[in-house]
Amino acid sequence: MKRIRLTVAYDGTGYHGWQIQDNAVTVEEVLAKALFALLGKSVELIGASRTDAGVHALGNVAVFDTETRIPPEKIAIALNRFLPEDIRVLKSEETPFDFHPRYCDSEKTYEYRIVNTPIQIPLLQRYSHHVYHDLNVSDMQRAAKMLMGTHDFSAFCSAGSQVKSKVRTIYELDIRQNPIVSVNGGREIVLRVRGNGFLYNMVRIIAGTLIEVGIGRRSADSVEEAVRTGERSKAGPTAPAQGLVLVGIEYR
Amino acid sequence: MKRIRLTVAYDGTGYHGWQIQDNAVTVEEVLAKALFALLGKSVELIGASRTDAGVHALGNVAVFDTETRIPPEKIAIALNRFLPEDIRVLKSEETPFDFHPRYCDSEKTYEYRIVNTPIQIPLLQRYSHHVYHDLNVSDMQRAAKMLMGTHDFSAFCSAGSQVKSKVRTIYELDIRQNPIVSVNGGREIVLRVRGNGFLYNMVRIIAGTLIEVGIGRRSADSVEEAVRTGERSKAGPTAPAQGLVLVGIEYR
Repeated sequence: MKRIRLTVAYDGTGYHGWQIQDNAVTVEEVLAKALFALLGKSVELIGASRTDAGVHALGNVAVFDTETRIPPEKIAIALNRFLPEDIRVLKSEETPFDFHPRYCDSEKTYEYRIVNTPIQIPLLQRYSHHVYHDLNVSDMQRAAKMLMGTHDFSAFCSAGSQVKSKVRTIYELDIRQNPIVSVNGGREIVLRVRGNGFLYNMVRIIAGTLIEVGIGRRSADSVEEAVRTGERSKAGPTAPAQGLVLVGIEYR
Repeated sequence: MKRIRLTVAYDGTGYHGWQIQDNAVTVEEVLAKALFALLGKSVELIGASRTDAGVHALGNVAVFDTETRIPPEKIAIALNRFLPEDIRVLKSEETPFDFHPRYCDSEKTYEYRIVNTPIQIPLLQRYSHHVYHDLNVSDMQRAAKMLMGTHDFSAFCSAGSQVKSKVRTIYELDIRQNPIVSVNGGREIVLRVRGNGFLYNMVRIIAGTLIEVGIGRRSADSVEEAVRTGERSKAGPTAPAQGLVLVGIEYR
């Protein structure tokens, strides 16, 4: 018996998130079916991040135990033959049995992509959120600084979360911009956030809040107040799923 | 009566190219229907580039004549309300009646995008061609130089073309690479080509030929031979449509 760790990338557009559920196609379900087709028996698959409906991944992590004789590093290629093009296993490797993708200490990196142009560009639409108001990136960067470090992020968590502690640490919250070469000009603004864990919808609420700061609908200082009070109503809306990518997970 | 010039961007994935045809949905058809919905009468739409099935655009150009009272620069926004998300009119403006998007002198810029990684990345799949052989970019660049300038490009034209002269000028054929940040590494290779006109499938045959050079299946010098003999069989295969984007058209 071996424990295999998979690095999984997907275009989340067509999926109701990672986790298996009734009456909706999920990434975990499609991956479990491909594993069944490859191995001839069903396995218990444990995913690191239960990404929401429509959220994308470049490096989600999942493990399963198997007695297959396929060499661990060949499983990725073999498995991809049973997967649709919008899900790819980028890497497969053997990992110790005490490795659990959710309970082991990790750092997760997400990116949230905003296309800030008068009119959305169809080739960017699928993986970004379009904002036509001209965003003030310096204000967004100033507000982002207030979210860095260890805080109770209750104000940045959707209802329905059952975690005990809402204290998390953000190590990095970087906002960069790249010009878009098109007839209308404009730019792509990428929020990159790295932390030791994220609450339900946390990155999307951070994105929604910083966009409101960028538009001028709220001050940079209001972000500090949201953190301090822990009131969800003091933070901004949950930005749409399609702009979010789980870039990767690093284990210590 | 006014002549209106549109700059049109689209994700070509769901379309059988630009030009109206029976039994298949095309960009021109969807745009013509949106114009009918907006203006209340049908117009004759003249497109600059009849992109093939699956080819994308950031800046195709089309014109039509109308007596509408909608200010020319407002037509783009008004029209987008009648268009699906994968087609956007980025700009609308008044243009002289002697402006014809196909007959006026122009420079067209295309990009062909190759993802050169062991396994394709789902988030890049829709707008690129995946090559898993490690490509030799210096060889590709050397071969590209032989295509620059004015040549008879008969070897780089698919059968079915009815143009009289196959002489075209390529002003720029630039190949650049950007690293891809993922668990497998790899890179994106972008061919950017600018010229005074392109034959049927010309950019995709150039891409297919340069990929074969990069793989080592043909020498850089064989490209010169293809140009010199004008024989289609001496050039490489037509690379897939999904990697190609019509970036823009400049009129003199």
